[in-house]
Amino acid sequence: MSAPTPSATAFAPASASNVGPGFDILGFAVDGLGDRVTATRRDQPGVEIAEITGDGGRLPTDAAENTAGVAALELLQRAGVTKRGVQLHVAKGMSLGSGLGSSAASAVAAVVAVDAVLELRSDRATLLACALEGERLASGAIHADNVSPCLYGGFVLVRSNLPPDIVPLLVPPGLACAVVRPHVEVSTRIARQALPREITVERAVRQAANLGALVAALGSGDLELLRRALEDRIAEPRRTHLVPGFGAMKNAALAFGAIGCTLSGSGPSTLALAPSLEDAERIADAMVASLGDVGSDRLVSSVGARGARVVDDLSPD
Amino acid sequence: MSAPTPSATAFAPASASNVGPGFDILGFAVDGLGDRVTATRRDQPGVEIAEITGDGGRLPTDAAENTAGVAALELLQRAGVTKRGVQLHVAKGMSLGSGLGSSAASAVAAVVAVDAVLELRSDRATLLACALEGERLASGAIHADNVSPCLYGGFVLVRSNLPPDIVPLLVPPGLACAVVRPHVEVSTRIARQALPREITVERAVRQAANLGALVAALGSGDLELLRRALEDRIAEPRRTHLVPGFGAMKNAALAFGAIGCTLSGSGPSTLALAPSLEDAERIADAMVASLGDVGSDRLVSSVGARGARVVDDLSPD
Repeated sequence: MSAPTPSATAFAPASASNVGPGFDILGFAVDGLGDRVTATRRDQPGVEIAEITGDGGRLPTDAAENTAGVAALELLQRAGVTKRGVQLHVAKGMSLGSGLGSSAASAVAAVVAVDAVLELRSDRATLLACALEGERLASGAIHADNVSPCLYGGFVLVRSNLPPDIVPLLVPPGLACAVVRPHVEVSTRIARQALPREITVERAVRQAANLGALVAALGSGDLELLRRALEDRIAEPRRTHLVPGFGAMKNAALAFGAIGCTLSGSGPSTLALAPSLEDAERIADAMVASLGDVGSDRLVSSVGARGARVVDDLSPD
Repeated sequence: MSAPTPSATAFAPASASNVGPGFDILGFAVDGLGDRVTATRRDQPGVEIAEITGDGGRLPTDAAENTAGVAALELLQRAGVTKRGVQLHVAKGMSLGSGLGSSAASAVAAVVAVDAVLELRSDRATLLACALEGERLASGAIHADNVSPCLYGGFVLVRSNLPPDIVPLLVPPGLACAVVRPHVEVSTRIARQALPREITVERAVRQAANLGALVAALGSGDLELLRRALEDRIAEPRRTHLVPGFGAMKNAALAFGAIGCTLSGSGPSTLALAPSLEDAERIADAMVASLGDVGSDRLVSSVGARGARVVDDLSPD
């Protein structure tokens, strides 16, 4: 019996992004949902995607056209790995276009797995930069608001995308979220097109003020301030019509004690913050019920969960 | 000898506002500069302004047209004081149009003095609302970014002007500022007209991200992050041409170790943040020197000084 070919598996969590006034700025990792990528060393250079599961056959397996593949290729290039390569198995754990950082999770899991199996010991900034290249393929631009919480965990503020400047934020103990994804798909591209190109300075100032207040509220644990600050005056007013049921879910969430309720990413996943996991459970139930006959998935998580990590191939997440 | 007519004197500090990305949002109180208002009870209703000093004769003494007078009148009205009134002596301690909240300081000192002499014991929110009415006279709109730090002290974030929602921010120990006012005057109105009416969403997002990062940096004491966050992409690019010498002062401040350098308010006062009072002293000297023959005043203060208070008539501030 020959020695097993070296391989490593990484899990990368789903992430909520935007978060009220934090359009293109805020994101946090969630528990219980994410992608897994297994990287196996091979003697040929480059990246081969052997298999993708959980995507309904929709993702390209050409590494140069796949988020995980591009991220892995970037890492090989930066690390100067030219004589060996990797084969990837990608297991999607969440729907595409859900607003929960699906492409970011694949890119992050890929770089963490490749880094581990080739024992590259890359620093965090390198892993981030490589995953961002994968994410760029999916969104057409560098956006770190899903990739950085997915990689680092926690609740982060993206001060700058290029170069990435990622600020970890404090999170009040117990802060939880309910995420409900109605079974409709929202194209990130169409959601971006729904945005205005320009806004008034007055609107920009109030958005910035809410963002600053939100950061202060997370730091101080002032949940009443957090409630007042969770207001998005840029993206949400233009996007909620793309998510049937958003208004009903938001009303239900607030009626059941949510601190606030906004789209995650560009939707359709809808995010409610709650003072505790128990509250988040009740809120998630109410949001699902508000959708009537429209099917949905639900997730309840702490806010700012662990980031990506190497896992045992057989572990449940 | 008859009993003296009851009077009370209040001091209200100067305040820096805007502060990098905090245009119309952030402000903090400074030491060593401010206005004093003495309120004396009288039997006639209403407000009479007996005297204004330090304004070079430029401020109106009709109470209904004077910032301090309007604020005092609003307080009498809200407190239901109809049978008595006050006479005010206003001592301006700073130049008009300096960018250091001159009108806010007069309004705040007036309400604090009137509240004290009439023993109204108004709550903070009432005093704020009354001072904001005075400030409205000066600026044409409700702006709490000078009035609230002047009244409460510290470093505040104005989440909302109407109704006022004022968030106190943490300040790293030792954080100091150098403020230099070149002897030129900038009209707040002209400075407002220099602003664009609309900006791109991209610009608004980066401004908000810097503001959030600034709040996080103040909370964590991360001065390197504070340095990166102190960038104004809305007001400063349109306003610095109104302040001759701004570029030279900013270069000098940064060369001497300033964390950042921006206009205070709409200028001409120029504000540099520094890790310590000692650094701020050196930075202020360098800024003054950079102005060459242009005269200037300088001020070095901790960031987030005490707010308005009743003082002994004979005390130095």
